[in-house]
Amino acid sequence: MLSAQEKAAILVEALPYIKKFYGKTVVIKYGGHAMVDCGLKKAVLTDVVLMKYVGMHPVIVHGGGPEITAMLQKLGIESRFVGGLRVTDEETMEIVEMVLAGKLNKEIVSLINRIGGKAVGLSGKDACLLQAVKKPGRVYQPDGTVEMVDIGCVGQVKKVNPAIVHTLINEGYIPVVAPVAVGPEGESYNVNADTAAGELAVALGADKLIILTDVEGILEDRENKDSLLSVIRADDVPDLIARGIIDGGMIPKVECCTRALYGGVNTTHILDGRVPHSILLEVFTDKGIGTMVVR
Amino acid sequence: MLSAQEKAAILVEALPYIKKFYGKTVVIKYGGHAMVDCGLKKAVLTDVVLMKYVGMHPVIVHGGGPEITAMLQKLGIESRFVGGLRVTDEETMEIVEMVLAGKLNKEIVSLINRIGGKAVGLSGKDACLLQAVKKPGRVYQPDGTVEMVDIGCVGQVKKVNPAIVHTLINEGYIPVVAPVAVGPEGESYNVNADTAAGELAVALGADKLIILTDVEGILEDRENKDSLLSVIRADDVPDLIARGIIDGGMIPKVECCTRALYGGVNTTHILDGRVPHSILLEVFTDKGIGTMVVR
Amino acid sequence: MLSAQEKAAILVEALPYIKKFYGKTVVIKYGGHAMVDCGLKKAVLTDVVLMKYVGMHPVIVHGGGPEITAMLQKLGIESRFVGGLRVTDEETMEIVEMVLAGKLNKEIVSLINRIGGKAVGLSGKDACLLQAVKKPGRVYQPDGTVEMVDIGCVGQVKKVNPAIVHTLINEGYIPVVAPVAVGPEGESYNVNADTAAGELAVALGADKLIILTDVEGILEDRENKDSLLSVIRADDVPDLIARGIIDGGMIPKVECCTRALYGGVNTTHILDGRVPHSILLEVFTDKGIGTMVVR
Amino acid sequence: MLSAQEKAAILVEALPYIKKFYGKTVVIKYGGHAMVDCGLKKAVLTDVVLMKYVGMHPVIVHGGGPEITAMLQKLGIESRFVGGLRVTDEETMEIVEMVLAGKLNKEIVSLINRIGGKAVGLSGKDACLLQAVKKPGRVYQPDGTVEMVDIGCVGQVKKVNPAIVHTLINEGYIPVVAPVAVGPEGESYNVNADTAAGELAVALGADKLIILTDVEGILEDRENKDSLLSVIRADDVPDLIARGIIDGGMIPKVECCTRALYGGVNTTHILDGRVPHSILLEVFTDKGIGTMVVR
Amino acid sequence: MLSAQEKAAILVEALPYIKKFYGKTVVIKYGGHAMVDCGLKKAVLTDVVLMKYVGMHPVIVHGGGPEITAMLQKLGIESRFVGGLRVTDEETMEIVEMVLAGKLNKEIVSLINRIGGKAVGLSGKDACLLQAVKKPGRVYQPDGTVEMVDIGCVGQVKKVNPAIVHTLINEGYIPVVAPVAVGPEGESYNVNADTAAGELAVALGADKLIILTDVEGILEDRENKDSLLSVIRADDVPDLIARGIIDGGMIPKVECCTRALYGGVNTTHILDGRVPHSILLEVFTDKGIGTMVVR
Amino acid sequence: MLSAQEKAAILVEALPYIKKFYGKTVVIKYGGHAMVDCGLKKAVLTDVVLMKYVGMHPVIVHGGGPEITAMLQKLGIESRFVGGLRVTDEETMEIVEMVLAGKLNKEIVSLINRIGGKAVGLSGKDACLLQAVKKPGRVYQPDGTVEMVDIGCVGQVKKVNPAIVHTLINEGYIPVVAPVAVGPEGESYNVNADTAAGELAVALGADKLIILTDVEGILEDRENKDSLLSVIRADDVPDLIARGIIDGGMIPKVECCTRALYGGVNTTHILDGRVPHSILLEVFTDKGIGTMVVR
Repeated sequence: MLSAQEKAAILVEALPYIKKFYGKTVVIKYGGHAMVDCGLKKAVLTDVVLMKYVGMHPVIVHGGGPEITAMLQKLGIESRFVGGLRVTDEETMEIVEMVLAGKLNKEIVSLINRIGGKAVGLSGKDACLLQAVKKPGRVYQPDGTVEMVDIGCVGQVKKVNPAIVHTLINEGYIPVVAPVAVGPEGESYNVNADTAAGELAVALGADKLIILTDVEGILEDRENKDSLLSVIRADDVPDLIARGIIDGGMIPKVECCTRALYGGVNTTHILDGRVPHSILLEVFTDKGIGTMVVR
Repeated sequence: MLSAQEKAAILVEALPYIKKFYGKTVVIKYGGHAMVDCGLKKAVLTDVVLMKYVGMHPVIVHGGGPEITAMLQKLGIESRFVGGLRVTDEETMEIVEMVLAGKLNKEIVSLINRIGGKAVGLSGKDACLLQAVKKPGRVYQPDGTVEMVDIGCVGQVKKVNPAIVHTLINEGYIPVVAPVAVGPEGESYNVNADTAAGELAVALGADKLIILTDVEGILEDRENKDSLLSVIRADDVPDLIARGIIDGGMIPKVECCTRALYGGVNTTHILDGRVPHSILLEVFTDKGIGTMVVR
Repeated sequence: MLSAQEKAAILVEALPYIKKFYGKTVVIKYGGHAMVDCGLKKAVLTDVVLMKYVGMHPVIVHGGGPEITAMLQKLGIESRFVGGLRVTDEETMEIVEMVLAGKLNKEIVSLINRIGGKAVGLSGKDACLLQAVKKPGRVYQPDGTVEMVDIGCVGQVKKVNPAIVHTLINEGYIPVVAPVAVGPEGESYNVNADTAAGELAVALGADKLIILTDVEGILEDRENKDSLLSVIRADDVPDLIARGIIDGGMIPKVECCTRALYGGVNTTHILDGRVPHSILLEVFTDKGIGTMVVR
Repeated sequence: MLSAQEKAAILVEALPYIKKFYGKTVVIKYGGHAMVDCGLKKAVLTDVVLMKYVGMHPVIVHGGGPEITAMLQKLGIESRFVGGLRVTDEETMEIVEMVLAGKLNKEIVSLINRIGGKAVGLSGKDACLLQAVKKPGRVYQPDGTVEMVDIGCVGQVKKVNPAIVHTLINEGYIPVVAPVAVGPEGESYNVNADTAAGELAVALGADKLIILTDVEGILEDRENKDSLLSVIRADDVPDLIARGIIDGGMIPKVECCTRALYGGVNTTHILDGRVPHSILLEVFTDKGIGTMVVR
Repeated sequence: MLSAQEKAAILVEALPYIKKFYGKTVVIKYGGHAMVDCGLKKAVLTDVVLMKYVGMHPVIVHGGGPEITAMLQKLGIESRFVGGLRVTDEETMEIVEMVLAGKLNKEIVSLINRIGGKAVGLSGKDACLLQAVKKPGRVYQPDGTVEMVDIGCVGQVKKVNPAIVHTLINEGYIPVVAPVAVGPEGESYNVNADTAAGELAVALGADKLIILTDVEGILEDRENKDSLLSVIRADDVPDLIARGIIDGGMIPKVECCTRALYGGVNTTHILDGRVPHSILLEVFTDKGIGTMVVR
Repeated sequence: MLSAQEKAAILVEALPYIKKFYGKTVVIKYGGHAMVDCGLKKAVLTDVVLMKYVGMHPVIVHGGGPEITAMLQKLGIESRFVGGLRVTDEETMEIVEMVLAGKLNKEIVSLINRIGGKAVGLSGKDACLLQAVKKPGRVYQPDGTVEMVDIGCVGQVKKVNPAIVHTLINEGYIPVVAPVAVGPEGESYNVNADTAAGELAVALGADKLIILTDVEGILEDRENKDSLLSVIRADDVPDLIARGIIDGGMIPKVECCTRALYGGVNTTHILDGRVPHSILLEVFTDKGIGTMVVR
């Protein structure tokens, strides 16, 4: 067991990081395993509350995949996918929105409040925070052509109106955002949470974007956990994709980082959400725990 | 068709009412038919946006009965009632919260924004706005005794923390509140929307509480629409109940008004939500359109 | 008689206009018949108070012709005119200033206050609001030459110091300005009220300039009231003058509008002040009631 | 001629007085000879500007007797007096108001601005600053009874609404107030300037009230200028009146001081306005130059 | 060596304490060994900077004994003591003030700035922060009488003017105060640093007073380190003194705590300044490291 | 003896100067005879307090030569000079800092406070106000070469962080700055007070820099006091140096002025600090009393 002195030493070690990020805004994409496991949930949100108390301005954008699927199953609504995107008809969209904005968002808010923060949940509809247009589905045909298909209420963020988030931050609240956007006619759109987080980070002039994932980060050799790339440069991303080091679901996440970087965000991080307190370790210690993408 | 002059005259008629309520907070319990009918929805929310533009501070608390029942049915969850209160087990509560905070709340927000206001949706969990404890169910036995039964996640508001609502009002937003409260362990409680509206009005120091209903107001003679009581005094309520003039579902609504009055709210109103723009007529003209309850 | 519903409908019609002009500054040149007729006076100033309550920032600049002439007559001071401008010796100027700043200005202020606004009267001397230099009189000789003559205390606005007007607006007051300017030695100058309104609109960064007149607007065919030009472009003004469509006393009014437009004012309006609530109709309905001059 | 050193010494002498009155509000009733003589005018208003620059908040309330009489004569309106009060019919009131609010008020404003201050003129109508009701005239009959007669638009201050004066003070302006009050129907009332100054001082929470007069102050022996009473206590006033030491026009001035003192004003002063810079000498040196009335 | 996970756990442990003291003012009497030893200096001031970053408002009052004695020796000035107090003639006082306000105060300021805080040094003369009167020396005679002797510039705090400290706190600075007070004639007084800290804590409305000492705290049995009294009540202090448990130099320190408690300070602490990071441990962990004195 | 009227006249004379400098920042290098003579001390600081009360923002930077030398002598520390600069080893620096920041600075603060201002003393270490690097000593060899030698803790200002000075000014304090700067490692540097004043004036965006000296100003003919150059242009300085009119210790003072002028300071002044109230005379009268250096 640690002596009091050793504990003090560790608190003191955090000081340079606290100074460095004082008053900075950090957008955290919260999803994956860390949203499912009880212990991890508490760890992530404790990190967020701690960030707030030591002078940072954390903003959460959460996902919600498994819960949505579960609710659709209960209702006997079958899910169809086109090009990796769920075909979201209006009935499905209603469920998606209820689960995201009515269940998961409020659960996160409530947990933060219990830990001692002051959270307020928002969907992209509130104060027109996230504004989207319909996104066409793309089906790649065997002959190499692309067919555009209607995939329903899947949206693409066109504009972010961050005023409400600034208001909440300035009043001491932690904003928690569900990735539902509003369309030109007031209709709901399901938007990708990673993208929403990236766009929000840019609109807020955030210093940092953190994407929690279910992998260690980007590995040079997928079989070797020790081959983690701690830092990659945005300019090297195309080459890393070409070499297959970045592939699959990681591609959109990394692209989301590079867009944020080009939009003025200072650093972006792909962290392993399965590691307890990975955010805290990233922010308050020297040893990152995933891959940092920088300009 | 009206001439321009006649239109001007009507705008001018509204001036004394605009002056009277300038800077005042008005809490509106929005429910019943006015939440179902498309035309009425738009009319109510247009009234609210207009109030905001002419210097009032409207705050909406909405209900949600029919939508909740519909969703429970889709999921095959049977509803059981005790003493008029839905027995709300945890599975049910999850659905209640999703429908209220994830669907209806966001629909209202989105509609207000389209009409030209700036709305932000809240549940009672956000910033711990509505804090509740478990409410016991009461079963009145034939022998006159009362049996207490567990009716699940039905809550009784214990504390209102209106800071977030003040923040939103001051920044020009219209707050829209779903009647879900948070318990001591962060758990969700279903609370009565009328009561929530009344408690919020008191906590905000509101000037006016408006409850939209599906009746004309309080009729002295139920068979005679012309027997509407335009104004009743809080002190006369017990007598009116004794005489059967106030009965059934109207009793809790009127009691909610009297509690608000004793808590400092200036006037309270039971309006007929089936009449388009009933709020506007109440606020901006001499002729009320329901029953006003005053001290 | 109108039903409550019809009244509500009309209030609702005004909403888009209220939204459009929320927070905008509107300078109104108040003069002519509308300053003489009791009913019109009340109608104009009620419109102004209503504008203030729905979030606009009206500023009044008033004229005063008939009252000045009446007072001069009572005092047996004869009026002489050169090139349409009253020769204003010091004795006359004293009377002009007293009538404008001491009588008419305070009457308007008092009437606004009774209607429910909060007005404060200013002359151009207060806080050096309107600063002028002496304007030479021009006599056009039969041989085509122009002779410059001394027409006394007639001034030309050289500088506007709008700080006091901003202060009053921000504190919720309606500023009412008498067209008396101050010269370099502290002396008084009579300045044209249309011009003063235009210059003030520019200095304030106003959105709109409204000039109340005693005609319908600009008619393409003077004999035909139906030939009203609802909108004219500033660039077309010289041509309209050349064609005699704009002539006489209308020329300086229109030029005052074009100068305001080039100074950054968004739209300018020449309204028929004899029509009750013409300002209200212009601002809150689709159907303008005079001629709008735009860039 | 004074050496630079001697001049410096005098500036330094003023420091304790500057400190003492820093941030304090001083209401000055400006009237009599000091409003007529050109040199005195400049001296008084220079003192006022200096007070503002060294951190005090001077507020001027001016009179206007001789100018009003002169204008009435020009117009052939005869003045009738009852019990020392001018019978003010509506025609007379119109002239009174024009002279006070339109001529004298703006002359003072303009002169202050030329000296380097920033003045804004107000009448009691502006922002409902001075609110009055009709004052009955009293005729004392030979038989000892009192007959009430109608003396027209002579008012008695009922309420002071000092908000606009605070606004102007806080923005760095010197408010200059004409003693015209507004009645319940928006009508004009002529109010006594001494009284208006006293009531305004109370409403503003002023530290000091200064009344400029045309006498040395209160003399114990009217024939002997050396018998000036430098300080009198409010409680001794009745006795001084009984002994005839305070009499005639001085009685209402002293009573105005005592009312101000009981209303919370710290010190009140009856100064000799015929002495150049008497205000400055009172405020910035040890040697008062008139009579101070204290509690 | 600790794993990253273990480090995170310790940071998380601090959260409840950070929340508890957020926005609270803590006055720290800094002296003894902790002001001499290089490592301890850095540890103490790092703790202070950390407190500031996590939202507390630390204020330092420092002592200076050994440095003063050293400088007096260098100058050949002999120290004489009466009743435990240094007889401080003017020559001595000059040295005392130079060492405290010119050397030690600035060293502390500079060290805090290097660690990453923003410190500003003050003596009690600055903005009249600490105002004192001369304190008489007391010599207890063998016959039980007390003789009063002149001990020079030793002062007793009479008034604290904390405005400058509030200003610095609000602007993000850490105030560092040297215990030199100013007398009625502007003269310097040497005041006890513990007392100065206590009085300042009261004047600031501080939540906590921490006195760093060179002992473990208050031991029930001086020979037994394990007999530390973790908490004592102010009311029990007289009894503890009577029993000899509190004695010698500890008596004034404890009395200083009780005075602070009665003045409204919430908790007071006598900590062992020889333990590195004792402040941090007291504030951020459950296990206090000295004696807490409470009401 | 002066009459009250004459005194008033002199106060009035100051008004144009008070207006001119209202709200302007003036940095005063306070040193030489004016820091030694009791009467002059009081005169200078009274001038400063007066400036503050009439709306200017004076900032004092003081020197300290004779006191430092006296203290070093008492301690038997010998002073060695290289190229006019005192070789300042660490022991010497400690004494320099104590005398400047601990004795003289606090004496000035205390005297200002007694006169009625609110002063706060700062050294360059407080809030990192003055940041310096080591300055090399230069020894000019007979052969014309320059040898660089170590002259210890003599610093050269590299950066000024004026935030704390702005904070104090805005809160109504008079900042008093000791010319001790902080180095990159937190070490102390002795910096030239004239230079520090000049750099601070630039960093603050001051309007005026005043350097108090022990000479009349710049004399064209050193033997003739009447040959004072009242104004010189910065561009003429090299020529005046070449002609020997500016020489010796005056050269760095004038160069300090020219650097301040190029840095944006409006006017700079070399005043005779031996003349009582020379600052007051410079600021508040037409007749300067030294040499003004302008662009």
